[in-house]
Amino acid sequence: MYDLIIIGMGPAGMSAGIYAKRSGVNVLMLDGELPGGLLNKISIVDNYLGFSDVTGPELSESMYMHIKNIGVSFKLERVVNVIKTDDGFDVFTNKNVYKTKAIIVGVGRKQKKIGIVNEDKYFGKGVSYCAICDGPLYRNKKLAVVGGGNSAFEESLYLSKFSDDITILVRGGISADAFLVDKVKEANIKIIENVSIDSFYGDDVFRGIKYNDNVEDFDGVFIYVGYEADITFLKGFDIFDENGYIVANEKMKSKVDGIYACGDIIKKDLYQIATAVGDGAIAGINASKYVKKVK
Amino acid sequence: MYDLIIIGMGPAGMSAGIYAKRSGVNVLMLDGELPGGLLNKISIVDNYLGFSDVTGPELSESMYMHIKNIGVSFKLERVVNVIKTDDGFDVFTNKNVYKTKAIIVGVGRKQKKIGIVNEDKYFGKGVSYCAICDGPLYRNKKLAVVGGGNSAFEESLYLSKFSDDITILVRGGISADAFLVDKVKEANIKIIENVSIDSFYGDDVFRGIKYNDNVEDFDGVFIYVGYEADITFLKGFDIFDENGYIVANEKMKSKVDGIYACGDIIKKDLYQIATAVGDGAIAGINASKYVKKVK
Repeated sequence: MYDLIIIGMGPAGMSAGIYAKRSGVNVLMLDGELPGGLLNKISIVDNYLGFSDVTGPELSESMYMHIKNIGVSFKLERVVNVIKTDDGFDVFTNKNVYKTKAIIVGVGRKQKKIGIVNEDKYFGKGVSYCAICDGPLYRNKKLAVVGGGNSAFEESLYLSKFSDDITILVRGGISADAFLVDKVKEANIKIIENVSIDSFYGDDVFRGIKYNDNVEDFDGVFIYVGYEADITFLKGFDIFDENGYIVANEKMKSKVDGIYACGDIIKKDLYQIATAVGDGAIAGINASKYVKKVK
Repeated sequence: MYDLIIIGMGPAGMSAGIYAKRSGVNVLMLDGELPGGLLNKISIVDNYLGFSDVTGPELSESMYMHIKNIGVSFKLERVVNVIKTDDGFDVFTNKNVYKTKAIIVGVGRKQKKIGIVNEDKYFGKGVSYCAICDGPLYRNKKLAVVGGGNSAFEESLYLSKFSDDITILVRGGISADAFLVDKVKEANIKIIENVSIDSFYGDDVFRGIKYNDNVEDFDGVFIYVGYEADITFLKGFDIFDENGYIVANEKMKSKVDGIYACGDIIKKDLYQIATAVGDGAIAGINASKYVKKVK
């Protein structure tokens, strides 16, 4: 039986892991994918203090090396269910069942789809949600980016390494930092605001976008229209708000004893790497204290 | 006139600076000492995710390079007073007066003294509050460390590079992480709990410690008995709790419009680099939003 299982190895979960390990509890971390979470899909990170202008995967690697150096145990297994038991929880993965006294949920969020015609059909055939993964495939191609926030603007800048013909289609107004908007303009990336996107079109592959009263050909489109909570394995527990985020108190504890949460999956004001790492520290400390009490 | 002045360039203040700069506000950072704050006095940091086993000054340097790369303006001037004006605040330093619309206070805390006889008399003559500064002066000497928390145990480990005769005097019980206690025992550092420290003695320099019913000679003593708020330049504002910490809401705003705070100077549960950097991000974002509204 573990003292503590941390589900999700993004920045929040890994920070929690460090604090739990240092507290001396018997902790296991689980993630179905590569450690780092959404970080692995971010081209450039320049707002996590101490890491200036690194790629998401580079930062992810530094964090992963840190938990390896500290000796936090982890397995790359996907959690599919959690049930309450008399003395804690059973955590079911795609491979095993683990018993634990407490859990920390740090599973993050996933990127939203626009929800328009042909978005799924052309995924991987011109439609992408990850510039750092797919950008290099579009060298000297004509690209669109959909979105008005920091992610859309950051990733457009990254794509400008490969293409000098990029248009950002902003639905409504720009919410990206002034700093980024300036850089995007300097990079000669076009910005069109108040865009209503109708659909994608193409044949075997994506060929362009219908928006407002236009039909415009593009070779590829990158979509950054926000993030959403996406958690199914805990749906049996009454710890979520109406949008699927976990409600946690200032100690990162949910309504259920023994369930803590941190990072992008909790309801909060500011979703950033810096706040995820801070949350994770708080969750790791408090879950460890809880486990020592129930021992 | 500045939009925003950040007072204090520790991890919290520097994180706030990054977010403010990226938000496009006209921001100035001020600190009377080297950037990094208390970090500069910490030997080893191993709990800020992504930086595995670095010295405090190394981490401090990475953070400082980050704000320099991003281009946040700063001056190494000590703030001595802040007064409210019609359109914001006047910030008085030891050299200048600056006008600003808003301020973020990220001045951190200072180390506590034990408060015993001869503690001040032998400061710098055998009594130290900074192992990374003074440890190398005590090679092969007999050392005491006073304290029972993570700082006392971390710094004892650092001192064990220089000396194999170290005793930790714990007043009451140990509160350090199990992880650290194990490492301290492995390093053959002696631990004495439930110590009541009476006084230091010596001649021109420190020679030893009176504690419980003992008199024991030491060549040096390092003191890690906690931290305390220490802010005088804002005492005119009603934003403090009874212990001198600033009370800030979840947006890191104090009771006074235009005054935000973050890091160790605010009242909170967990005082860590990770939480300071998270707080700083929140303060930076919200102070910038405030400034754009009052413009």
